[in-house]
Amino acid sequence: MYVFLDFFGIAVFAISGALVAGHKKLDVFGVLVVALVTCLGGGTLRDLVLNAHPVVWIANTTYLGVGIISALATFVLVRLKRTPLHMLEVCDAIGLAFFTIAGTQKAQALGHSFEICLLMGIMTGVAGGVLRDIICNEIPLIFHREIYATPAIAGSFLYLTLSYFNIDTDVAALSGMAVTLASRLAGVYFNISLPAFLFSEDGKESPKPD
Amino acid sequence: MYVFLDFFGIAVFAISGALVAGHKKLDVFGVLVVALVTCLGGGTLRDLVLNAHPVVWIANTTYLGVGIISALATFVLVRLKRTPLHMLEVCDAIGLAFFTIAGTQKAQALGHSFEICLLMGIMTGVAGGVLRDIICNEIPLIFHREIYATPAIAGSFLYLTLSYFNIDTDVAALSGMAVTLASRLAGVYFNISLPAFLFSEDGKESPKPD
Amino acid sequence: MYVFLDFFGIAVFAISGALVAGHKKLDVFGVLVVALVTCLGGGTLRDLVLNAHPVVWIANTTYLGVGIISALATFVLVRLKRTPLHMLEVCDAIGLAFFTIAGTQKAQALGHSFEICLLMGIMTGVAGGVLRDIICNEIPLIFHREIYATPAIAGSFLYLTLSYFNIDTDVAALSGMAVTLASRLAGVYFNISLPAFLFSEDGKESPKPD
Repeated sequence: MYVFLDFFGIAVFAISGALVAGHKKLDVFGVLVVALVTCLGGGTLRDLVLNAHPVVWIANTTYLGVGIISALATFVLVRLKRTPLHMLEVCDAIGLAFFTIAGTQKAQALGHSFEICLLMGIMTGVAGGVLRDIICNEIPLIFHREIYATPAIAGSFLYLTLSYFNIDTDVAALSGMAVTLASRLAGVYFNISLPAFLFSEDGKESPKPD
Repeated sequence: MYVFLDFFGIAVFAISGALVAGHKKLDVFGVLVVALVTCLGGGTLRDLVLNAHPVVWIANTTYLGVGIISALATFVLVRLKRTPLHMLEVCDAIGLAFFTIAGTQKAQALGHSFEICLLMGIMTGVAGGVLRDIICNEIPLIFHREIYATPAIAGSFLYLTLSYFNIDTDVAALSGMAVTLASRLAGVYFNISLPAFLFSEDGKESPKPD
Repeated sequence: MYVFLDFFGIAVFAISGALVAGHKKLDVFGVLVVALVTCLGGGTLRDLVLNAHPVVWIANTTYLGVGIISALATFVLVRLKRTPLHMLEVCDAIGLAFFTIAGTQKAQALGHSFEICLLMGIMTGVAGGVLRDIICNEIPLIFHREIYATPAIAGSFLYLTLSYFNIDTDVAALSGMAVTLASRLAGVYFNISLPAFLFSEDGKESPKPD
């Protein structure tokens, strides 16, 4: 079951990468690269930092295949019919939930401390999207839109806490994913943002960032 | 002979990095950094992902020297005379051909599978240029101009196929390089692009991306 | 004493990251990420390239804590009072001086050659700021403003030379830091820039870059 979830996470992030690249009018190869960076970037960065070689998609090249097929399918499908509204947000939220918990579990399996597991979970969940936006020459959306990392932090924290109290791993993992997914979708739906940086001299004329 | 080709690849990519940085009016240090990232970035990323330490330019610092001298020479020469038309494209195509095959061979020497060798060849060939464009705050050119990765894919694929059938390594490598170089230059000359991403709702008003 | 200097370096770079992120109106999480990337990015890149695992902030999570607290304090404080003029430049210069020497020393402790130690010192000093600017979608300031890497090169070179002649390590390190700090602040104060790239065809109409 976990392998299936993993592939599902890869697929939804590849689709999200392909959609963002598409809005920039990249060609088919550009779409492929952005999709692969989005769906494999977080895990690759985590494995490099944790020195956990071989990195995930070298150990199992099926990940590459799933990412490539998802991106190409997106490339073809959006030419044929309109993409459903909010499809990008929903794909992204599902990928975020899976990857955050998977990243937390990998660090945990390697015996790291609570705070490193938490950080690796967040990094695995959000880094792919950050790299996607950097390549597409955008300020990463996650830094100035609705809450994004907060759901990842909440889910990873819940998983690690349940795990600490010896709750069954599957229950803990599903709880963590559910919290991340639900809070992220609630954030998008109710348009919840975190407070922005505000310099005191800005305060008088512009109380809200654009 | 291979070492000479390697240095030639480093030099042409360093020149291409210096020329792009130059168009952004960076100072001499910025030009150096962009040149080094362009000529060493692909190989560094490959070595990190494959866990092939020490990375290439730490194992042999002559690479650094070749990159630095090429960048500084470019910095001086373009002040003295006009750069020949298309010089950037030709340098880049030669570097692409060398680096793609060199990256493929390194992964092959480490015993990786066909698809990982192919991917590492492409990554070694294109990543330097992608990093160059990210630092210079551009959407990487390779994603929305003439074919770029396609020649790398073709060359690496040909090399690996010939190699699989036990053709002499030098013959295989030179064939792969020739295919990459010829198809990239043909792409630039005949202005061959890959199809761009097109949303179905875009189709009516704007059939071609800008 | 060294640990204190290290934490001070982390803190000032985290503050510089938070201030730059703040000018982009990022939210509190964006500010945290940019601050952590700024203060830990250079060291992480160095440790990955040198294969010096575990990377510095996994080996000692206090670094993470110092970075997070500094960023959050900045986030709160700038809402309350105006930031002193040039505060960003001074923080950045202090961080540059510490990190350059610390990076040089780490490479030296691992037995690398003079030129690799020099390069690793520069990379540790400047990479965090470069990554900060890439995430914030800017051409890295260090490439087209007052001298920035030149002070790092000078300080690292002085340290390594003194060290080569068996001068006491603390004296060598403090001398290197002093040279980096003084020349960087002088560069800001007197507005010293390096010559920019200039194409010969530009020469007639625009002798100076903007």
